[in-house]
Amino acid sequence: MAKILYLVPGVGLSRDEQKRREGLANSFLTQEKNSVAVEAVDEGPISIESTIEEAMSVGGILKKVAEAQDRYDAIIIGCAGDPGLAAARELSSIPVIGPIEASFHLACLLGESFTMVTVLDSIIPAIWRSLRDYGLEHKCASVRAIDFPVLEMHKDPEGVARALLRESREAVDDDGAAGIVMGCMSMAFMLVDEKIRMELGAPIINPAKASVKTAEMLLSLGLKQSRVTYPEPDYKKLGLTIFPGLKAR
Amino acid sequence: MAKILYLVPGVGLSRDEQKRREGLANSFLTQEKNSVAVEAVDEGPISIESTIEEAMSVGGILKKVAEAQDRYDAIIIGCAGDPGLAAARELSSIPVIGPIEASFHLACLLGESFTMVTVLDSIIPAIWRSLRDYGLEHKCASVRAIDFPVLEMHKDPEGVARALLRESREAVDDDGAAGIVMGCMSMAFMLVDEKIRMELGAPIINPAKASVKTAEMLLSLGLKQSRVTYPEPDYKKLGLTIFPGLKAR
Amino acid sequence: MAKILYLVPGVGLSRDEQKRREGLANSFLTQEKNSVAVEAVDEGPISIESTIEEAMSVGGILKKVAEAQDRYDAIIIGCAGDPGLAAARELSSIPVIGPIEASFHLACLLGESFTMVTVLDSIIPAIWRSLRDYGLEHKCASVRAIDFPVLEMHKDPEGVARALLRESREAVDDDGAAGIVMGCMSMAFMLVDEKIRMELGAPIINPAKASVKTAEMLLSLGLKQSRVTYPEPDYKKLGLTIFPGLKAR
Amino acid sequence: MAKILYLVPGVGLSRDEQKRREGLANSFLTQEKNSVAVEAVDEGPISIESTIEEAMSVGGILKKVAEAQDRYDAIIIGCAGDPGLAAARELSSIPVIGPIEASFHLACLLGESFTMVTVLDSIIPAIWRSLRDYGLEHKCASVRAIDFPVLEMHKDPEGVARALLRESREAVDDDGAAGIVMGCMSMAFMLVDEKIRMELGAPIINPAKASVKTAEMLLSLGLKQSRVTYPEPDYKKLGLTIFPGLKAR
Amino acid sequence: MAKILYLVPGVGLSRDEQKRREGLANSFLTQEKNSVAVEAVDEGPISIESTIEEAMSVGGILKKVAEAQDRYDAIIIGCAGDPGLAAARELSSIPVIGPIEASFHLACLLGESFTMVTVLDSIIPAIWRSLRDYGLEHKCASVRAIDFPVLEMHKDPEGVARALLRESREAVDDDGAAGIVMGCMSMAFMLVDEKIRMELGAPIINPAKASVKTAEMLLSLGLKQSRVTYPEPDYKKLGLTIFPGLKAR
Amino acid sequence: MAKILYLVPGVGLSRDEQKRREGLANSFLTQEKNSVAVEAVDEGPISIESTIEEAMSVGGILKKVAEAQDRYDAIIIGCAGDPGLAAARELSSIPVIGPIEASFHLACLLGESFTMVTVLDSIIPAIWRSLRDYGLEHKCASVRAIDFPVLEMHKDPEGVARALLRESREAVDDDGAAGIVMGCMSMAFMLVDEKIRMELGAPIINPAKASVKTAEMLLSLGLKQSRVTYPEPDYKKLGLTIFPGLKAR
Repeated sequence: MAKILYLVPGVGLSRDEQKRREGLANSFLTQEKNSVAVEAVDEGPISIESTIEEAMSVGGILKKVAEAQDRYDAIIIGCAGDPGLAAARELSSIPVIGPIEASFHLACLLGESFTMVTVLDSIIPAIWRSLRDYGLEHKCASVRAIDFPVLEMHKDPEGVARALLRESREAVDDDGAAGIVMGCMSMAFMLVDEKIRMELGAPIINPAKASVKTAEMLLSLGLKQSRVTYPEPDYKKLGLTIFPGLKAR
Repeated sequence: MAKILYLVPGVGLSRDEQKRREGLANSFLTQEKNSVAVEAVDEGPISIESTIEEAMSVGGILKKVAEAQDRYDAIIIGCAGDPGLAAARELSSIPVIGPIEASFHLACLLGESFTMVTVLDSIIPAIWRSLRDYGLEHKCASVRAIDFPVLEMHKDPEGVARALLRESREAVDDDGAAGIVMGCMSMAFMLVDEKIRMELGAPIINPAKASVKTAEMLLSLGLKQSRVTYPEPDYKKLGLTIFPGLKAR
Repeated sequence: MAKILYLVPGVGLSRDEQKRREGLANSFLTQEKNSVAVEAVDEGPISIESTIEEAMSVGGILKKVAEAQDRYDAIIIGCAGDPGLAAARELSSIPVIGPIEASFHLACLLGESFTMVTVLDSIIPAIWRSLRDYGLEHKCASVRAIDFPVLEMHKDPEGVARALLRESREAVDDDGAAGIVMGCMSMAFMLVDEKIRMELGAPIINPAKASVKTAEMLLSLGLKQSRVTYPEPDYKKLGLTIFPGLKAR
Repeated sequence: MAKILYLVPGVGLSRDEQKRREGLANSFLTQEKNSVAVEAVDEGPISIESTIEEAMSVGGILKKVAEAQDRYDAIIIGCAGDPGLAAARELSSIPVIGPIEASFHLACLLGESFTMVTVLDSIIPAIWRSLRDYGLEHKCASVRAIDFPVLEMHKDPEGVARALLRESREAVDDDGAAGIVMGCMSMAFMLVDEKIRMELGAPIINPAKASVKTAEMLLSLGLKQSRVTYPEPDYKKLGLTIFPGLKAR
Repeated sequence: MAKILYLVPGVGLSRDEQKRREGLANSFLTQEKNSVAVEAVDEGPISIESTIEEAMSVGGILKKVAEAQDRYDAIIIGCAGDPGLAAARELSSIPVIGPIEASFHLACLLGESFTMVTVLDSIIPAIWRSLRDYGLEHKCASVRAIDFPVLEMHKDPEGVARALLRESREAVDDDGAAGIVMGCMSMAFMLVDEKIRMELGAPIINPAKASVKTAEMLLSLGLKQSRVTYPEPDYKKLGLTIFPGLKAR
Repeated sequence: MAKILYLVPGVGLSRDEQKRREGLANSFLTQEKNSVAVEAVDEGPISIESTIEEAMSVGGILKKVAEAQDRYDAIIIGCAGDPGLAAARELSSIPVIGPIEASFHLACLLGESFTMVTVLDSIIPAIWRSLRDYGLEHKCASVRAIDFPVLEMHKDPEGVARALLRESREAVDDDGAAGIVMGCMSMAFMLVDEKIRMELGAPIINPAKASVKTAEMLLSLGLKQSRVTYPEPDYKKLGLTIFPGLKAR
């Protein structure tokens, strides 16, 4: 009976879309007894298409993590850049999952290398930064963009699918990628992977699905992030200042 | 209703012990509808404590994989050296899971580095070879041995637990490991991790559990190894010679 | 006649201490016609001793960068973790300097490897993340801590100097470090390097000095960050939302 | 008066062809007092064109090594994938040579990087695995295939030579390779290198020749594999089970 | 009042051209009180376009360094291959600057990667050797040549500028370079960077300017190379033989 | 009937000692028809114990290579730092062997890693530079020194043997080295390896022997360095200036 928070790191998602994603996220669960709730941060960018917006989402994410960890058993940071992942893990006494970190490692189980296909060129440098942080740069064949802004994708699902298929095929044929990681949660919740997987002929990983599965796996194994890499913070200091009301754990 | 084969790569396990492991493996399942069957190879070493024995297990593993893939939905190679993993993936049209590859990537989700604690020094070079193969050498803080032969461990479970705790603590304190991966399936099925996890204070990964969970995750996501890295073999040639009766897929 | 902003990323510094640092920073200038102004963010942590606090400083930093870039010619992010560096560079049309990135590269000019000596163990994982991001992990012999909280250091300058000398010597003798980078701006502005450099016998880099010099060097060379790595953002989108009033450049 | 075993790891070679290769191998010797004998395994694949076949050759190779080490002074594993190399070295008290490992290191003495030109795409992933195992991935400019099955090559020696020259030239011109390593022992014993070396203008290494020369060099220097990397096995345990009759050394 | 020696490592530069470069180098200074003197070695190649010529310049450079370090405060080795840099640093008690090492690290402050654009293909392998030596190979997107001999460039400044712009643009567009490092001091003193920087749209680093600025920065910070990496030599032994008259320091 | 030049890069060796080494070098030959001649440079250091001396030997080496390549079939640079190796290869139309490069690659054939044991700490940084240049840094467990000056060793062969054994054992036990490379040609020609190899229990490589064997192997295989990495120089330009009389090839 684990409760998982899928934390939307921006303020641009309508409540309806949040509900829709919540329904989908629950449909990704392996165990019926588990549940996923979608909540958005109180402050943050409309969408994340740049390192700037990724960075500006971190404050809102951490405030939510500080407060929500008493109400949930695990937290998924709902952005394909894993913003604030390391800080959230330090702050949190429950497992925190980064969809892209989880997807990258899953991709490594399927083949020698992977390509990430994201939305816009402007976010590609941030993805390479994550790859270096995770020590997986050498497993990444390429990072490619479909050239759709996040907020435009829902208007043209067929166009998104075609662009994703095109970039994925070029990744396999030209860059030697053994698999594809979808690089945007809005793309992920369009379930575009299901439209193209038959045609592609190489595994494609949906980070929304991968992160829900990874959360369940960690919970069922009783595992969470290590205090060696994510040391326990000084809760008292934090509670007095940037996270008023934060209690020691 | 997925059926998972846990393939024992040696001939030294009594049928009783196989049954006991089958019971445990089924208890690791997340989904009740799934099941794990334990089968052993027809030929192979008694136990795997050297690169030689690991290598001598591969023939038996592949023969079993060739034949069993029609009866199962996924195969776990039941050895903490993942013997024959790449070849089994080429040969198989269903997902093949290496417990150690899966555990290493899981460990990466929990902290910056991990230590593998295995049985004997004689198998350590083989583990480093796996780490290089998986591109994870830089994430491994150390490989340590508890100095118990595989076939002796069951006689002294407390001694094994103490030795594992000792090596794990030294790994964290001296080598900077953020987490521990147990490096032997016989150790894993003794559930030694459960005895020491409270005392250790760093995550410890049981490869038996991790491989069952990973098999379920891949099955529920509809993912399997990529034909880019594990190319489809010439089934006809193989069927005429080393795998008599093998059918094209 | 370049104006450099030294941006304090937290709110724990008294106005007096800011003034004192401003005086020192101006004394580090090579060219008299240049000037350094110290300003603090409007919101943020008291001090930065964890990945959490580093992350929580980024929002305040970027808001200040968005607004201040019209009033200055270059910006130094005044924290030895370079918080928000990549995002600030994207956002800014003037050079942005990270004291630690600048110090690391300076250290590389002086010897084969360096050790960073910081304040507390709790910030060490964040420093390794920076080293990986900058592609300099292999040049870093070790990261060590003197075990002084940021806000306590000023009470015991002699103790800080002794601890820095002790850790620096061990870095050279035991870790093979060719040079030392001081890993805290509060330590840097105590000018502890000047107290120990004679005794140490290996170069020690003060990031406050290094960042001022690097800012001047970039300005005099007419160089700033590349739009290839730090792409020009969608100023209009940013101006409508997270940075009200931001103008296109 | 050293006797070298060239061990054919498959069962597809006619006795005539074995004799022909034995003659050639002896012609590669530097010292007249030495000799090379060609023997084939008792069981194994017809030819090795996939990771599967490479893996299925290991059992037969090790059985032969276990038995033959009393009759020879050094053993060459006669396949350009070095199947079972590490295990054979553990098992053997005499030097074991992998033709590709030897050729790769020889290529490193001639230039900054090399390309391996093998037979079929299906074996390329196995070669990259060897490169990672040997720590030479960064020295390999590319792995290319001439698209000839092993058992077809002898029918069209001119075609093989043309294809090898074409791929080698593209390797030099497009991939920046400084030298070429022929990636198949059947190709090697066709002496195709001698046909194209004048035209190529870059060094080309024949692994059959390289392995014979390396065997002689090790023997004349009194060197063999280190027990640090290839630990002495438990001969008694092995002798009781997978290698009946194996004696301690 | 620091005096900097810009040491020309060849004998092919007219006294007029030396004077012209001295004037330019002084114009690059940040501090008026400092000065740069240009001196050439007594023996050496006419120009440096190969590893051979680079190597043949080292003897003359070191003899000059041995003698000149009493007359100057810092030495710049005036060649974009940094010939003899490590040896000169061992020999010298004052800072020694390699223009290319300094430029590479400066380039790292501006973006994720850089391309070096040099004169002829024949010097490219030497540049990759420097990159490996400095541990920056992974930051280099490519090394390209404009195909102008050093001694021909001055005859066609427009052609040089066009070729540099062409190669730089291809570096950015095709190789992903975030910045450009000019790879020849004769090119640098033609100030070609100033002609193309507006058109290029990515930072371009002039190693002549960068080395003068770096020399000043080191001097003003009181920093020089570490004796850990560049150990103090046995001055007595050197003074008796290869550097007659060399005094201990 | 190949003639090999063993080129002594310094001027400190008596003619008697040169003759003694010539005798030994000829005894290392595998083929009686081959011969080794020892010649010393005309100018250079007495012995090579620092980066400075290594650098000061290069001019003399190249002048000798330029002239001697018509009289010999291969050249061994007689110093365990391989001074001028890349330049000599560019300059030479016959194979040039670096004893240490050859020894490092030979060591890689014997185990996962090696330690180099050299004479003095002052030369250790130069050795790491070579390791980086050859792309073998990751294979080197450590570089250690026996603390004997080159010119003192012959006075105390027992002391040298004891020190080499002590450092070698510590390398194996503490650093994990699988093999040892002797890091000085004077040590090599004392044949100290033969005194300690029985006691050490790990392979030890004598670079004098290794380089003679490698020279013979290259000659018998008809291989030499690639013009891709060591481009053909402009012989005319070189002949007019630094190598008077040099002819095109």
